[in-house]
Amino acid sequence: MFEKHIYSNRRNALKKQINKGLALFLGNQESAMNYPANTYHFRQDSTFLYFFGLNDPDMAAVIDFESGEEIIFGNDVDIDDIIWMGPQPAVAHKAALCGVEHTRPFNELFDYMGKNKNRPIHFLPPYRGKSAILLEKLTGVKPDEQKKNASVELIKAVVTLRSLKEDVEIEAIENAMEVGWLMHTTGIKMAREGVYEREIAGAMEGVALAHGCVVSFPVILTKNGQTLHNHYHGNRLAKGDLVLVDAGIESPECYCTDHTRTYPVGGAFSSRQKDIYSIVLKAQKEAIEMIKPGIRYRNIHLHASLVMAEGLKTLGLMKGDMKEAVAQGAHAMFFPHGLGHMMGMDVHDMEDLDENYVGYDANTTRSSQFGTAYLRLGKELHERYVLTVEPGLYFIPALISKWKSENMFPQFINYEKTGEYLNFGGIRIEDDVLVTASGYKVFGKPIPKEVDDIEKLMR
Amino acid sequence: MFEKHIYSNRRNALKKQINKGLALFLGNQESAMNYPANTYHFRQDSTFLYFFGLNDPDMAAVIDFESGEEIIFGNDVDIDDIIWMGPQPAVAHKAALCGVEHTRPFNELFDYMGKNKNRPIHFLPPYRGKSAILLEKLTGVKPDEQKKNASVELIKAVVTLRSLKEDVEIEAIENAMEVGWLMHTTGIKMAREGVYEREIAGAMEGVALAHGCVVSFPVILTKNGQTLHNHYHGNRLAKGDLVLVDAGIESPECYCTDHTRTYPVGGAFSSRQKDIYSIVLKAQKEAIEMIKPGIRYRNIHLHASLVMAEGLKTLGLMKGDMKEAVAQGAHAMFFPHGLGHMMGMDVHDMEDLDENYVGYDANTTRSSQFGTAYLRLGKELHERYVLTVEPGLYFIPALISKWKSENMFPQFINYEKTGEYLNFGGIRIEDDVLVTASGYKVFGKPIPKEVDDIEKLMR
Repeated sequence: MFEKHIYSNRRNALKKQINKGLALFLGNQESAMNYPANTYHFRQDSTFLYFFGLNDPDMAAVIDFESGEEIIFGNDVDIDDIIWMGPQPAVAHKAALCGVEHTRPFNELFDYMGKNKNRPIHFLPPYRGKSAILLEKLTGVKPDEQKKNASVELIKAVVTLRSLKEDVEIEAIENAMEVGWLMHTTGIKMAREGVYEREIAGAMEGVALAHGCVVSFPVILTKNGQTLHNHYHGNRLAKGDLVLVDAGIESPECYCTDHTRTYPVGGAFSSRQKDIYSIVLKAQKEAIEMIKPGIRYRNIHLHASLVMAEGLKTLGLMKGDMKEAVAQGAHAMFFPHGLGHMMGMDVHDMEDLDENYVGYDANTTRSSQFGTAYLRLGKELHERYVLTVEPGLYFIPALISKWKSENMFPQFINYEKTGEYLNFGGIRIEDDVLVTASGYKVFGKPIPKEVDDIEKLMR
Repeated sequence: MFEKHIYSNRRNALKKQINKGLALFLGNQESAMNYPANTYHFRQDSTFLYFFGLNDPDMAAVIDFESGEEIIFGNDVDIDDIIWMGPQPAVAHKAALCGVEHTRPFNELFDYMGKNKNRPIHFLPPYRGKSAILLEKLTGVKPDEQKKNASVELIKAVVTLRSLKEDVEIEAIENAMEVGWLMHTTGIKMAREGVYEREIAGAMEGVALAHGCVVSFPVILTKNGQTLHNHYHGNRLAKGDLVLVDAGIESPECYCTDHTRTYPVGGAFSSRQKDIYSIVLKAQKEAIEMIKPGIRYRNIHLHASLVMAEGLKTLGLMKGDMKEAVAQGAHAMFFPHGLGHMMGMDVHDMEDLDENYVGYDANTTRSSQFGTAYLRLGKELHERYVLTVEPGLYFIPALISKWKSENMFPQFINYEKTGEYLNFGGIRIEDDVLVTASGYKVFGKPIPKEVDDIEKLMR
């Protein structure tokens, strides 16, 4: 938890943006796995954590934009709780740590909301069933109606604040990188013939846990990198396989890392692998170089797309005018996702608030073109944004077969040649970047990504 | 997944128990961590898995007890799903694997339930918010009303079936034990001075993951074993500490293990630790010896309580007539939980269906006495039950202080002496046991629990 004034300052900044009504912030409850008492590891709601810093379940808070009053609702523990869960500080004590003066038992929230029901109630869209049920009880808005009744004013204000990472947050993200580095380098060294994917994935997640962290999202570790979010870890690695690993950690302070590396089983890229890898790496490095305040991230995405399309052309996989191919979206058969996303307390930062408010604005609306439509961050970059840069090239048999049968972009795609790559898999390379006043800074100790550095580490 | 006839047989057995209406089984949905797309590892609902064997999200099934019809509702994947999640078999193909002939798109479930709304609908109490919201849409029963409107007839029928483990289940549980053994022995060897609790907990969970398993519940690993469900792993181990580790794995088939071991940092018990440890071990071994069909598990719980009370008396911590002390519940200050619980696909098997239907029946109702009230399984044992045996002794400062100030059982408890143990912590020893025709069988390769064996392994 940061110092108290950090949280007070954030709430004061929020109060400056909204004048009417009150904001209701629901902290998360425990999340049941297979029965009520068997729960997944507790994850607090990021916005609740941002404004109040308290990492315990079953709390809520309100900010009254008219009176300025702030109240935290939560229950103190009893002797049964102490026997099972250990002693805990009182809610009033916790509230003081984030500079909130007033606390009340959780049940009084129902009364409180009842008394205020004729005022504007600003709430954020819930993403958990239990929160949706609680929100219905508190506001009368049914779960299916909550997203469209969420306060756009509050969403925009929260996004404005959380997008600009404070010094303490930048430091927290940088501090998280050490474990992310250790996790990935542990994985790279393990990728030998005969090893199961799950052995590496398990060791990597174990590294996160051993350092008091968790994974910031389910580990993607696969020899079938062409499936973008592949969580199946049951394959045994063989010579010639490429392993794609997209993984990050979440620190005890709930700040994330997110890196992808792709490496050859046994430690030597084949020349075909090296060709595609070098194209992705060139695109990633050029994309990073372009990062600075004022540039639209979609333009960087399109530049990376062009670099990769041109690379594919040199290999005979694409043909014709690559600028035109990228404009029409032909490259997306090989690169069907976005270049990156905001990162912070959430690995896709604030995605619960709706990507279109986080990654787009009035000046940059979302593309509807296949591929670029998946880009989560398109708008102009500002100093203190933290984002990922993660181009990739994939040979997805089902997609290639669909496009081929529909005769998509025959002027740009050489389907005869792609037929030779159906067993290739996929390559992605990802780093986390801070937008600085003059340009960018890549977070953390570098995880090897040059061909020679990877091969050296695997020796 | 087991062979098809296993699932057909189970559903046929269920159909023999209920004659009217239809049963609605909701499979689980993905569970959001901090935004909708960032999910915890998927855990299927155990009862859905028991009757249908399908381990994928967003499915439901109905069994019509009058027509005998069985239908699985679920959606096939589209090209976008394939790009992100990989190719998947069709729902009809999956349904055939569990012997169900009829499948329909998920959305048709709403229509189906609408058409059947005047018939008796049997459903089980949901434990996840999303399931509760879905159930309200399907049945009109509000989340707060669902538990009391759940079908007691269906609950009892499911409990009857799932309590008696089939041969394939007993084999699946036995097969899971190897990884549970490896996880615990890995932990025991790591418990040295200067190591953080999280390092051991992380390595242990890493072992589960590396073998394609997950932990069956959040790892309890602590030098403060007096807190029964202690998930804080931030302490550094020092000489003289006892480490209590309660952990288990869940196999890819979703069968559990659950063991507790307690061991001294550095590998040598102090004489005071050995005294208490030996009492718990004696109680655990005698309890296991008593297991056989026909005996009430509460009687075994009370015997273990008596063994421990008598041991505490020899150390001067208790005094007077120990039979009377146990009858009155004085021992529960040191042993405030139950001796064990049913285990199977859930580590507390079927706890979502209500412990009172799982662990109690018309002949054995739950005690209201502090301590014994926490006993999850009290009723008569039957062949094919699988259960845990886990006595423990704890010195819980808050509880001792409360009882002392309330002058609880001064005739049985020597509060002066307990004052010397306030920093002792807690000890628990747990194994998993099958009730056989003639007695019992302890599952798995033994994880060391004798003092000498533990000290030897730690050398």
